[in-house]
Amino acid sequence: MSGPVKGGAQNVAQGVVHGVGLGPGDQELMSVRADRLIRNARHVAFFRKKGRAGQARRIVEGMIAEGATEHPMEYPVTTEIPVSDPRYNQILSAFYAECTERLTKLAEVGEDVVVLCEGDPFFYGSFMHLHSRLQVPVEVIPATTGMSAAWTATGMPVTWGDDVLTVLMGTLGEDDLVRHMEAADAVVVMKIGRNFEKVRRALTRAGRAEAAWIVEFAAMPQQTVRKLAEVGDGVTPYFSIVIVHGQGRRP
Amino acid sequence: MSGPVKGGAQNVAQGVVHGVGLGPGDQELMSVRADRLIRNARHVAFFRKKGRAGQARRIVEGMIAEGATEHPMEYPVTTEIPVSDPRYNQILSAFYAECTERLTKLAEVGEDVVVLCEGDPFFYGSFMHLHSRLQVPVEVIPATTGMSAAWTATGMPVTWGDDVLTVLMGTLGEDDLVRHMEAADAVVVMKIGRNFEKVRRALTRAGRAEAAWIVEFAAMPQQTVRKLAEVGDGVTPYFSIVIVHGQGRRP
Repeated sequence: MSGPVKGGAQNVAQGVVHGVGLGPGDQELMSVRADRLIRNARHVAFFRKKGRAGQARRIVEGMIAEGATEHPMEYPVTTEIPVSDPRYNQILSAFYAECTERLTKLAEVGEDVVVLCEGDPFFYGSFMHLHSRLQVPVEVIPATTGMSAAWTATGMPVTWGDDVLTVLMGTLGEDDLVRHMEAADAVVVMKIGRNFEKVRRALTRAGRAEAAWIVEFAAMPQQTVRKLAEVGDGVTPYFSIVIVHGQGRRP
Repeated sequence: MSGPVKGGAQNVAQGVVHGVGLGPGDQELMSVRADRLIRNARHVAFFRKKGRAGQARRIVEGMIAEGATEHPMEYPVTTEIPVSDPRYNQILSAFYAECTERLTKLAEVGEDVVVLCEGDPFFYGSFMHLHSRLQVPVEVIPATTGMSAAWTATGMPVTWGDDVLTVLMGTLGEDDLVRHMEAADAVVVMKIGRNFEKVRRALTRAGRAEAAWIVEFAAMPQQTVRKLAEVGDGVTPYFSIVIVHGQGRRP
């Protein structure tokens, strides 16, 4: 018997933006919670490159409910701007602000939104750039990382006893890579792609190349697992992760 | 119309030992695959200390099917032997060999076994000591790590841009801890327990204590999240993980 709601959206409870970690790419490796949130979502948002389906969207193929609204968030083209150029950050910053506004508008009218995040959202993800801007309720669902899938695919534990594990991005300078590869027992290198030859040189200089493995498309149907030494020149592995296993105490 | 099987067990297909990562401790954060394997298992094995329920077993409370057989594997008491004493490794080695034999006997008569593994099995787990010994088919299911749950609980991403992340065990020497804490952007320290004061001194010496967080029981009902500076002296945090967040590029 209550009268019409005044002010519309302001009186509706705010929706929640769920940053849902999808894990490495196999639907079976998603968490029970992620699985349920995705299947029940009325709004599903995800990043992708213009003209592409998007890796996050591809992972959930067949899971999105009929009638759900999809919200692709398309990265602006920045391939011709060096990462060090201030314009690079400006363009990305404006893009993340715009995405934040889209999600906020949904939450403000009481709609929950699931944002699909490859891997674990707070581990080198893109979702964090929305998370730091959003003023509406946000929940983050952690997940299995791509690196866990990669070391599992090698069939060997990555760390034993009190091994030190260091995670490096292939975008780092070669000398930095070498220094960290020398200091750690176990090493993971991500963002390989165009940095592959540099990463390989760094591993060789650090004396770790012989022991290194490279996993492409970990936990996905196209998965390949090779010793780095078996990878030829001029190859650019995709969705690849380098693993050097620790050799710690093993009773 | 085939006759009776000769030789009994030898003609049965071997069972599979599944090393199932349980994740940080919340049943909702288990993978869809782990959830299904555990609920359908006829044999469930897990490590525990003598006289304890066992953390892995506790995590799956209510999930094990009626009629399933539980196989607790109880660690021998080694508290009075220093880890550096060769007897320590000998006792553990004999224990893991004995557990391996138990699981092998089940697999040889065609029974699948689920081994419950806290966190991710190939990341500082105990399952690896069975994995390296088992000669029957083994499958490892990766999972969300306790550290992912811990950094998610702080409400802040652990790594940005090309931050370097280093994972350290509190059992390391203080100087080693300091050196690695200084070199990395983001730091995770696990196995805190009795090493807490040493870890805190190392963080202070490395200039990272002010920025450090400590998460107890990440993703469990008793979860606490505090700045390290707020933790008093003489406290021994349980199931705790220290997180120092990276400060990398953030458009």
